[in-house]
Amino acid sequence: MELFRRRYAKCREVMAEKEQDCVVVFPGTNMYYLTGFLEEPLERLLVAILPRSSEPVFIVPELYEKQVKTSTWITDVRAWKDTEDPSKLLNEVLSSLSLIDAKIALDTRMWARFFLMFLKVAPKAVYSDASEVIDGLRAVKSKEEIETMEESASIADRVTKGVIGRCGIGSREKEIASLIELELRKLGVESLPFRPIVASGPNGAFPHHKPGDRRFKRGDCVVLDLGGAYKGYCSDITRTIFIGRCGSKEREVYEVVRQAQQLAFESIAEGVEARRVDGAARAHIADKGYGERFIHRTGHGVGLDVHEAPYIWDGNAQILKAGMTFSVEPGIYLPDRFGVRIEDIVVVEGTKARRLNKVSRELTVV
Amino acid sequence: MELFRRRYAKCREVMAEKEQDCVVVFPGTNMYYLTGFLEEPLERLLVAILPRSSEPVFIVPELYEKQVKTSTWITDVRAWKDTEDPSKLLNEVLSSLSLIDAKIALDTRMWARFFLMFLKVAPKAVYSDASEVIDGLRAVKSKEEIETMEESASIADRVTKGVIGRCGIGSREKEIASLIELELRKLGVESLPFRPIVASGPNGAFPHHKPGDRRFKRGDCVVLDLGGAYKGYCSDITRTIFIGRCGSKEREVYEVVRQAQQLAFESIAEGVEARRVDGAARAHIADKGYGERFIHRTGHGVGLDVHEAPYIWDGNAQILKAGMTFSVEPGIYLPDRFGVRIEDIVVVEGTKARRLNKVSRELTVV
Repeated sequence: MELFRRRYAKCREVMAEKEQDCVVVFPGTNMYYLTGFLEEPLERLLVAILPRSSEPVFIVPELYEKQVKTSTWITDVRAWKDTEDPSKLLNEVLSSLSLIDAKIALDTRMWARFFLMFLKVAPKAVYSDASEVIDGLRAVKSKEEIETMEESASIADRVTKGVIGRCGIGSREKEIASLIELELRKLGVESLPFRPIVASGPNGAFPHHKPGDRRFKRGDCVVLDLGGAYKGYCSDITRTIFIGRCGSKEREVYEVVRQAQQLAFESIAEGVEARRVDGAARAHIADKGYGERFIHRTGHGVGLDVHEAPYIWDGNAQILKAGMTFSVEPGIYLPDRFGVRIEDIVVVEGTKARRLNKVSRELTVV
Repeated sequence: MELFRRRYAKCREVMAEKEQDCVVVFPGTNMYYLTGFLEEPLERLLVAILPRSSEPVFIVPELYEKQVKTSTWITDVRAWKDTEDPSKLLNEVLSSLSLIDAKIALDTRMWARFFLMFLKVAPKAVYSDASEVIDGLRAVKSKEEIETMEESASIADRVTKGVIGRCGIGSREKEIASLIELELRKLGVESLPFRPIVASGPNGAFPHHKPGDRRFKRGDCVVLDLGGAYKGYCSDITRTIFIGRCGSKEREVYEVVRQAQQLAFESIAEGVEARRVDGAARAHIADKGYGERFIHRTGHGVGLDVHEAPYIWDGNAQILKAGMTFSVEPGIYLPDRFGVRIEDIVVVEGTKARRLNKVSRELTVV
């Protein structure tokens, strides 16, 4: 409980810097990070109002009241009944905290239906994205958080190695994806923030392909991208393998991606801008003539969410700090042919980064 | 594809009735229902702008471009690059469709970050919740949808029966929950919209208890609540069982809930207000002296989402129509002691309802 309270204290400092009067969190990872209460988004109003200069209040549906009270350090928990309109309680709370025309930073993932409720109750408030306040705090992990990230990465590694051993001519994308899910669960993963990607042959040209009925053929290039949440913290790893043989074009592209990933990795250090890391991968891929075929950013932060700050892209001048954990995952996608992506989670440590994933990045034919 | 286009045509009629100029859908079930493209919410701007009187436009991140194009009937798909600010493209599209100061109905689950982007690009537009337009359409299922709901319910039934057979003294909540997940997956469930609830003894007093390390004891009352999405359509069933023996208080409460569920079921017919169904269950429970311990609504619609319209509660005067599918799930929760809930999915058919779940509701001791 002390942990969550300390985070809120830090959050208040950032609110002061950013001139925000309060942060509102919605069920999901931001709520968990600041209050200790973990729940999926739901269609009933459940929010924590976290002011800069008064005490926080939870607004909860009655059927969550006890659960919230036992999971959070926040003592002021106010419940509304299923037979009531929750906007009344919202109005009472915002009024009592003098937040009716304040600067309110809303959880980036709060649903429109609740944002509309805020707009109705407090139309003169000035709204912004609470990411401005929270993301910087969440991006820098504590020692304990990094240890959990390591455990989580190590589970993803074991599953990746295991599943590569099970791939061969005739394997079906969907079956390999189910196998991945099962193995992640077996090793203690409590939820899958995204379904595993198994993209074979031409399907590999879609970075976020949904596994289908296609069976692997000799010569296929197969992208395997998987991850899960372990003790709340996410893993995310991608390896690209070859079935039976690897053609010369495939080999060339694979090596370009592998080198790009290594160059991006080596560019990481405390004090470097996020976009420099993207630039390191992008420049190499462009040099080799595939600039137009690298159609996404180089990486994203990973922690309680599988996609969070810092985002590693061209336009992000954010300065990397020690303790930040993010993916490094350049890729090349050749429409109607194949795709290659290699991804590791790394942590920034002083003048360099350290990979949390240990699976070989050497070209692998199975 | 024709199916989705027809739904959009109907949606346009409702937009006209409700005086809305356009509907904006966000990745999730509303987007799937109207466009055919199925994806989880993501932090990159991906929306379909569905105007009442001009052609629809998809705004997508470049790495989703091909996938969207192959999954939807909408031909105008405009992509933005990871290196660009997506609000520019949003501005272009809203301007070209003359929607900058229009009446815009936003997907109820659209994230605040994107709502803020709309507010920045089109501050003079009038925003509302697209549920007003879409929910009524989605609530009434077609013959094909009901058939899929039946298949989905039948999977949940098989898993419920199987898992009841595996419960006994010493079973651990978490293990039973994992078993449920595994069995649902084995029978073809593609995703779990909620984690199974296994709430034993005093934990049963929390309607949405998270399974923990508690082991079942002789005399425990255990609430089992589970469901999954099969071919896109959700199941949701709850049974409450007794371990080894059933005490007299437990028996009394169980029978009150069972009768309340039956009375609610019998009150359902085309033309009846949703709140009458809630009232039927609630009046019986209140009569028996447990009114204060029935702390949630009687039910919720089920379909592509596990919680959707129609919501069966006290304040909902919505008229039930043939083809609506929803849960009937009264419960009684005695703090620090136990809880009982019985839930079936039903479909409205003329002058009565039909249960999709067939698992016995008789008091069961294992």
